Amino acid sequence: MIRAGIFGATGYTGHELLRIFRAHPQIKTAFASSTTYAGQPFSEVYPCPYDDLLIAPEDAPLDAADVVFLCTPHGASAPYAARALEAGAKVIDLSADFRLRDLKVYAEWYGEHGAPSYTSKAVYGLSEIYRQELVRCDLVANPGCYPTGPLLALYPLLERGALVSERIIVDAASGTSGAGAKPSLKTHFCNVHDNYSAYKVGHSHRHTPEMEQELTRAAGSAVRVTFCPHLLPIARGILSTVYVTVAPDWTPERLTSLWQARYADAPFVNILPDGNLASLAHVVNTNRCALSVSDGGAPCELVIVTAIDNLLKGASGQAVQNMNLMFGLDETLGLIA
Amino acid sequence: MIRAGIFGATGYTGHELLRIFRAHPQIKTAFASSTTYAGQPFSEVYPCPYDDLLIAPEDAPLDAADVVFLCTPHGASAPYAARALEAGAKVIDLSADFRLRDLKVYAEWYGEHGAPSYTSKAVYGLSEIYRQELVRCDLVANPGCYPTGPLLALYPLLERGALVSERIIVDAASGTSGAGAKPSLKTHFCNVHDNYSAYKVGHSHRHTPEMEQELTRAAGSAVRVTFCPHLLPIARGILSTVYVTVAPDWTPERLTSLWQARYADAPFVNILPDGNLASLAHVVNTNRCALSVSDGGAPCELVIVTAIDNLLKGASGQAVQNMNLMFGLDETLGLIA
Amino acid sequence: MIRAGIFGATGYTGHELLRIFRAHPQIKTAFASSTTYAGQPFSEVYPCPYDDLLIAPEDAPLDAADVVFLCTPHGASAPYAARALEAGAKVIDLSADFRLRDLKVYAEWYGEHGAPSYTSKAVYGLSEIYRQELVRCDLVANPGCYPTGPLLALYPLLERGALVSERIIVDAASGTSGAGAKPSLKTHFCNVHDNYSAYKVGHSHRHTPEMEQELTRAAGSAVRVTFCPHLLPIARGILSTVYVTVAPDWTPERLTSLWQARYADAPFVNILPDGNLASLAHVVNTNRCALSVSDGGAPCELVIVTAIDNLLKGASGQAVQNMNLMFGLDETLGLIA
Amino acid sequence: MIRAGIFGATGYTGHELLRIFRAHPQIKTAFASSTTYAGQPFSEVYPCPYDDLLIAPEDAPLDAADVVFLCTPHGASAPYAARALEAGAKVIDLSADFRLRDLKVYAEWYGEHGAPSYTSKAVYGLSEIYRQELVRCDLVANPGCYPTGPLLALYPLLERGALVSERIIVDAASGTSGAGAKPSLKTHFCNVHDNYSAYKVGHSHRHTPEMEQELTRAAGSAVRVTFCPHLLPIARGILSTVYVTVAPDWTPERLTSLWQARYADAPFVNILPDGNLASLAHVVNTNRCALSVSDGGAPCELVIVTAIDNLLKGASGQAVQNMNLMFGLDETLGLIA
Repeated sequence: MIRAGIFGATGYTGHELLRIFRAHPQIKTAFASSTTYAGQPFSEVYPCPYDDLLIAPEDAPLDAADVVFLCTPHGASAPYAARALEAGAKVIDLSADFRLRDLKVYAEWYGEHGAPSYTSKAVYGLSEIYRQELVRCDLVANPGCYPTGPLLALYPLLERGALVSERIIVDAASGTSGAGAKPSLKTHFCNVHDNYSAYKVGHSHRHTPEMEQELTRAAGSAVRVTFCPHLLPIARGILSTVYVTVAPDWTPERLTSLWQARYADAPFVNILPDGNLASLAHVVNTNRCALSVSDGGAPCELVIVTAIDNLLKGASGQAVQNMNLMFGLDETLGLIA
Repeated sequence: MIRAGIFGATGYTGHELLRIFRAHPQIKTAFASSTTYAGQPFSEVYPCPYDDLLIAPEDAPLDAADVVFLCTPHGASAPYAARALEAGAKVIDLSADFRLRDLKVYAEWYGEHGAPSYTSKAVYGLSEIYRQELVRCDLVANPGCYPTGPLLALYPLLERGALVSERIIVDAASGTSGAGAKPSLKTHFCNVHDNYSAYKVGHSHRHTPEMEQELTRAAGSAVRVTFCPHLLPIARGILSTVYVTVAPDWTPERLTSLWQARYADAPFVNILPDGNLASLAHVVNTNRCALSVSDGGAPCELVIVTAIDNLLKGASGQAVQNMNLMFGLDETLGLIA
Repeated sequence: MIRAGIFGATGYTGHELLRIFRAHPQIKTAFASSTTYAGQPFSEVYPCPYDDLLIAPEDAPLDAADVVFLCTPHGASAPYAARALEAGAKVIDLSADFRLRDLKVYAEWYGEHGAPSYTSKAVYGLSEIYRQELVRCDLVANPGCYPTGPLLALYPLLERGALVSERIIVDAASGTSGAGAKPSLKTHFCNVHDNYSAYKVGHSHRHTPEMEQELTRAAGSAVRVTFCPHLLPIARGILSTVYVTVAPDWTPERLTSLWQARYADAPFVNILPDGNLASLAHVVNTNRCALSVSDGGAPCELVIVTAIDNLLKGASGQAVQNMNLMFGLDETLGLIA
Repeated sequence: MIRAGIFGATGYTGHELLRIFRAHPQIKTAFASSTTYAGQPFSEVYPCPYDDLLIAPEDAPLDAADVVFLCTPHGASAPYAARALEAGAKVIDLSADFRLRDLKVYAEWYGEHGAPSYTSKAVYGLSEIYRQELVRCDLVANPGCYPTGPLLALYPLLERGALVSERIIVDAASGTSGAGAKPSLKTHFCNVHDNYSAYKVGHSHRHTPEMEQELTRAAGSAVRVTFCPHLLPIARGILSTVYVTVAPDWTPERLTSLWQARYADAPFVNILPDGNLASLAHVVNTNRCALSVSDGGAPCELVIVTAIDNLLKGASGQAVQNMNLMFGLDETLGLIA
């Protein structure tokens, strides 16, 4: 059994991890920490029967953990990561702290880094792309919820040099769990229900540099993303509609074939048959990423629609998928494909 | 034109009043106050184009108002009511401060009263029942959102002495706007959406003594209410399912006829034909109260289903209906029947 | 591996069964039949990657199945049950065909029975109550979605003779999946969303005689149920608020203790601590039944709130729980407790 | 009083018209027709107290109507229009029959036209753009729900020649009322709720040629639209996120100023202050069109977000706005600005 600890267990990603741990035949919860709820059983925080006692983060028995999941906010994660690595545990960080390879870019979007010397050791945890690096690493930077779908859709295309314009438009919509568990006017039921709204449009959301970093790596040259997130009146799921301009020989059928080849061994990638479009219903409550592509109505234009569950493939599910890889287990253990 | 002021304008009932004022041909907004947002236009608080400037409550020009609506919390309303009445304005209080005729009962459920000498001057603003008293009063205690539907349904029945058991069960479900505009874990989108839950069941919700007071008046003898409110994953509307034991000659048809006679001149009471059941869709975004009754499956048992929009007939709509009555206007002015 | 077949696989309970089969370590799908979609893979009917080929019911290889789940409508199930039993398979019927022990009562509510000789062989599949009978039976009448929660809540209480009045009020609310997958005005999104409505109130819903049958057995004397179902604007979950009159010594605390004793070995029964109330969030997407009880506000009155997921503990989950029992497996296999 | 008739009154746009008629001080309902429900009062079709008797379309007293609203499907509208015009009534057609000025384009997207000789007489009813033509016309082609917002946003920009690329991307999301009142798998509650999906992406939705026609007129040269509609799990509202490439001197501030000048006298156009983004909450249940614009993150890129209520400004509200203009009334009569 793998002994797994969680820092920041009472946020949505922590709750989701505990749920997965219960279904996973090889995980034993080592500890679950919470600054706010230390001393209470988890069942008093969420309507569930989990009797795990929450402990203060400073009391976390790091030596009793083979792996530590960080569900703490960016900025807070980095020092926890350093502590856990030094104690000999592997670390999977669900925050943004180790996602950006360039510390200057990190500083620009997030401020000063809390453990800069570890950045170069981190592997970007997009499981299907970095599987080999993940198998032998100790520190995973689990991807952001928004980047995961578009990156899986675009990575193979950009590797092949198919992009003509360097500009990509990602129009995305997320369920409200993406905004976190903390009450605010933004997350008040009456402000979200029956509403649909854009926020941080253009180039202002922090997941933009993360997408650009990875797409630039795939393409081998600078890629620019215009990113417009929207808030959906649902709890879970992200659907991204991606507009790209490609070389004339890239039809939807050819892209579908490319995906099939690239993801032949990827149990969570659900490539839809031509003519079908990905929807949240394809993925919610699973660790799947659904991919679909259509003609944009003019030569060289493709419209890609991709969907994930933001708390699973977009966070805790992919984190456990990465853990499975890191410990040599079947990639799908404890997860729904 | 009637000059109307609002204290506590940025809660949901205040917002709703401003919406109605704009549609009402005889109302001019005198002022709208807010402690939190004083100095800002209303359009910065809610996504709407209302440019009314919010003022601090202490700056409210009471002499410029013919009527003042109190959308302030219980406890806070009573002193405002005293101030406004002394300045010569009529007052419609949407809080609970003047609903309970017995100050001891008030103290038990709400604490010490802020203006006890005015309680006896207040008219309980259930428009269809107290129409004549409302026409000539200066202080209206606008009914609570939960009591309005069950009271309109039961009042005629109890006046006729039809009740056999003194116990009435009111099982009700409300949209989340009833919980107010303040963010909390209870109103976080992810806690309400796809959920349905009971709260304050039995005899613990503050609207219970209000229902018992009015039903006891109607019956001429003590009536006891078992009241179980539930929270619905919608923004607006209250549906109440009411279980009563009646004398054997009270069939659903007879009760429907009684309602038709009692509410012949009530433009907002929507009595459904036999066999139909009230739903939220009958009433949301209107000032209607829908009434329906069915056989309970055994002799002497009736099941009444009644619905209102909690922000309209359950709050701001009924408040304006009362204002129309107080100023001798057509009862339906500015409202949807 | 247990070879399991499904008749009527493309309704919601069939879809849910297939989902559970994929997570269950001891089930192998033998066949999945559909009259409408025969010849198509399941992934063309629902947005999921299940490639199971749907076959016509007449082509179902009964000899290749150890157990057959009937997701067919009442009336249609009985003949399938007979066929499967004769072929040597065990049968779990999710329709109402074998739930009512008295064929006259069945006829009254459903019409003529399709396989009357089998009725006496069926065990009512309320797992926690009929566990011993289930272990050695061949034909299970899986309970209706509405009865499951109230029966688990009331059975221990009535066994103990705690009921004073013979009348029980069950006010329940169900998600729309309970209305089935067939499009109709009743299930049109715009008619359900933001709405809440009662239907078949009093004594007219077909789950009423089922509740009365089982409660009468528990009590040893006739019990009458006033049942009012409501439709919730959500997909999954049933919450029931149950009003009972009990002997004076039955406090909420005592009932909670009784449940704890009665369900000490029941992994899916989630008894909430005093002061907590069951909500859909406790149970949706799990096979749990949450139980909670409060004071009704007067001596001898209790208000019980109980919740299940209508497609899991209220249908397919309980069906697999029963299968686990019938085949001597761990009761929780493939299910979420 | 203007006597107004409705063909196809029991669809959502017909229902909405009847609602507006009741609030409009100058409209008297002349007739409301329905093929399916002829002979029934409207209150039996929708949960409302409207007692208007539905008549068969062939019984419609055209001579008793000053204006006729066609809520009939495309193809069916054209012959009704001809009949009503010949009887001397003005006609406002909410279908697509008279929106496309080029009959060849109409044929390509909709098939053969039912009254081709009238096409040239129709005015495209985008009120704020064609106000002068509307004032003196007899036949209005009320715009499609999707085009209305993007056209109001883009028309002034294209008139000024600000577009650099001829390609515009319109990514839009609509509430489910846009799919009509007919039950189908697509509109089943359980398929829409908690889901979000794209459909007819690229250049395949019938509102695409309508947008291109009007934008080409505004620009004076061919404009191409890549259009991706999505289905939202709500009943009402359309939000469009529009990506344009403009000349370098077109900042968001400059576009906001242009809108303010162009729509200075347009009571329903709600231009948001810089930094604010339009949401459905700005417009639902009103006849407003909200407009907002942001920097796209690179030179020459703008992201416009615009919102309407699809049944009001996107259909019945704009239809009545047009009627007000045609009859010389205040544009806002009966509508919410």
